[in-house]
Amino acid sequence: MKQSHLFTRTLKELPKDETSYNAQTLLRAGFIDKVAAGVYSFLPLGCLVMDKIRQIIKEEMLSVGGQEVSMPAFAPKENWEATGRWDDLDVLFKISASDKKEYALNPTHEEVVTPLAKKFIYSYRELPFSVFQIQTKFRNEKRAKAGLLRGREFLMKDLYSFHADQADLDKYYEEVSAAYERIFNRVGLGDKTYLTFASGGTFAKYSHEFQTVTEFGEDLIYICDKCRLAVNKEIIDDQSTCPKCGNKDLREDKAVEVGNIFKLGTKYSAPFDLRYSTQAGKKELVVMGCYGIGLSRIMGTVVEACHDDKGIVWPESIAPFKVHLISLKEDEVAEKIYNELIAKGIEVLYDDRDLAAGEKFADADLIGCPYRILVSKKTLALESLELKKRSAEEAQIVKIKDILSYVQ
Amino acid sequence: MKQSHLFTRTLKELPKDETSYNAQTLLRAGFIDKVAAGVYSFLPLGCLVMDKIRQIIKEEMLSVGGQEVSMPAFAPKENWEATGRWDDLDVLFKISASDKKEYALNPTHEEVVTPLAKKFIYSYRELPFSVFQIQTKFRNEKRAKAGLLRGREFLMKDLYSFHADQADLDKYYEEVSAAYERIFNRVGLGDKTYLTFASGGTFAKYSHEFQTVTEFGEDLIYICDKCRLAVNKEIIDDQSTCPKCGNKDLREDKAVEVGNIFKLGTKYSAPFDLRYSTQAGKKELVVMGCYGIGLSRIMGTVVEACHDDKGIVWPESIAPFKVHLISLKEDEVAEKIYNELIAKGIEVLYDDRDLAAGEKFADADLIGCPYRILVSKKTLALESLELKKRSAEEAQIVKIKDILSYVQ
Repeated sequence: MKQSHLFTRTLKELPKDETSYNAQTLLRAGFIDKVAAGVYSFLPLGCLVMDKIRQIIKEEMLSVGGQEVSMPAFAPKENWEATGRWDDLDVLFKISASDKKEYALNPTHEEVVTPLAKKFIYSYRELPFSVFQIQTKFRNEKRAKAGLLRGREFLMKDLYSFHADQADLDKYYEEVSAAYERIFNRVGLGDKTYLTFASGGTFAKYSHEFQTVTEFGEDLIYICDKCRLAVNKEIIDDQSTCPKCGNKDLREDKAVEVGNIFKLGTKYSAPFDLRYSTQAGKKELVVMGCYGIGLSRIMGTVVEACHDDKGIVWPESIAPFKVHLISLKEDEVAEKIYNELIAKGIEVLYDDRDLAAGEKFADADLIGCPYRILVSKKTLALESLELKKRSAEEAQIVKIKDILSYVQ
Repeated sequence: MKQSHLFTRTLKELPKDETSYNAQTLLRAGFIDKVAAGVYSFLPLGCLVMDKIRQIIKEEMLSVGGQEVSMPAFAPKENWEATGRWDDLDVLFKISASDKKEYALNPTHEEVVTPLAKKFIYSYRELPFSVFQIQTKFRNEKRAKAGLLRGREFLMKDLYSFHADQADLDKYYEEVSAAYERIFNRVGLGDKTYLTFASGGTFAKYSHEFQTVTEFGEDLIYICDKCRLAVNKEIIDDQSTCPKCGNKDLREDKAVEVGNIFKLGTKYSAPFDLRYSTQAGKKELVVMGCYGIGLSRIMGTVVEACHDDKGIVWPESIAPFKVHLISLKEDEVAEKIYNELIAKGIEVLYDDRDLAAGEKFADADLIGCPYRILVSKKTLALESLELKKRSAEEAQIVKIKDILSYVQ
């Protein structure tokens, strides 16, 4: 894409009430716009990143047999009353419609997916299965000051699984846990993300979170470097030890929760009486699991975890463009290189604007594409281009004819 | 996909309050589930159709230079007060958040996109540009009885364009109109869809709708067969003539509005004072256009326009699967054919279930994939398969080795 065609630009002024690093940076770089506290628009650069995160998550959910669905934002009050959460869940947005009925704006979908599953589950033959969606969630947050990390409206992937018994859930839970690790590796957070033991609520000893270490993280976790796992502060007591190896030498760090997986058991199948017939003809409650990842939260976390003082350093897998091509008044050659790279399927943001070199460099650093290619009088004198990796200190001079082998 | 893995199945019982043909059929066939009046979940088969409609629309929006964005469902009350629509628009859902502020659940996004554009438009140099999104809309409908044709919550593509003057808008409007024709052709509604003159509201003589002729359509249109265009009843008077050729011999038909395009002029730039500097340094209001297509509405309209008494007849471009492969107790051969077709990139729903032939045929007709391939003892005796196009009366016998050339 030619940067002169992009309707957004990098900004110098920020909304006064925006205090989070991720939103400040994404606003400045033109990835998002703020509509209200905790409510953002995704602009073209932001949509490109979200599309890539979405694709990675979708592939991994399909790899564990997830069937894609899309449930609505609205659910009738009765569904939420059935589980007791109409009154208990303080982040639930409630709305009245002109049919005189009340609805929740779903912050999660157990109250929709369980009645849905009930329409199709009769016997053990239908089990197990799992469904996922990538869909907008709503939470009536009192404080929505963490940018994309805690929105009133946000994009989430949620997967729900249905099993005949606990053993089958346990097995699937491990498969999904492994898929989550693949997702965090693929979006570039693998090194900094820990499977973290957290509270299991009423029905299980533990649930598990995936926590990414970042300097502004809201959570405190205790990391066992031997087992590469962590424990959330919420379940730490004085005698805290690694739940796997018993190691007492845990390291404290700040982190952001980027995913969670939870053995629901029969917590939601019971209120909706979601049962199946066993082979012996007995009616048993279905055993459920749920597994969440926030897509907008991943985008915000990557910005918090992968940046320097000049801007974002996108992992290649989710960068809006692989290459940021900058022309310093050498548009004819630059245009040719732009077309050649595109013909090879490389995603290029081509800065063809009539701006000073310093402004173009500052924008490229802020926007954070993995490779910056510079075309200038100086480089052309050497039949070359200047190639700089966003994550590297130094640039290198590369012959024009060799550039593809560096960025392909 | 193997049908035994699909968690949904075709249903015999329908929600009592569902009276629309499109929703009844999509519910029976397992494409959607009803959560409340005008509120549906999309199930795996429905998601596959929606993905294809989405991809076609996205490609055509990119082809007219649209830049993708994703604006939120929430917008602050102030935005809607600025245009006077907080009080005037009766379908606006209003909601209070814990920050003591009121928000609208956007049924359309002029109140969000205009302030967004204002952040980036300074001078004529930034114009023209256009942005689009594929996003969930909310309308507080009094009656939501038309299935996917009139939801409280529905998926829509909306494109907004920004221009320096009316002439530039007029030119772009024609480009988008042509893109819309391509979209309706590609989703299989081209033959039955007419560019239709409708009321232009306060600011233009006409707006334009795209109306698809169907037996259950809620709108009445008057078609000029000479010009292949139509006039909506709402602007018909006694002396009605074709606006293009003056033909008075117009033909009345029932139709569903599947898209609309509208020259907004300065209707929304004025209240938000969205201006640009002309080359002479004068400050002028930006001229806007807006262009909508409902994705869920297209899905519903296709079902109303393309069916027979046995079920849906999906156009190939948006069918959930191209081929419905049915095994009548010949699973070994069927599995082999299934794998071969998939290896060639053909999308196959493979009915590997242990059911009677009649049930499998009825399901295939109801679900409506373009090609049905049958593997049975009888066909295998001839080293053949039975191939039936969903839209054809008769099946044909095709040698196994030739099947690819028929469905590729």
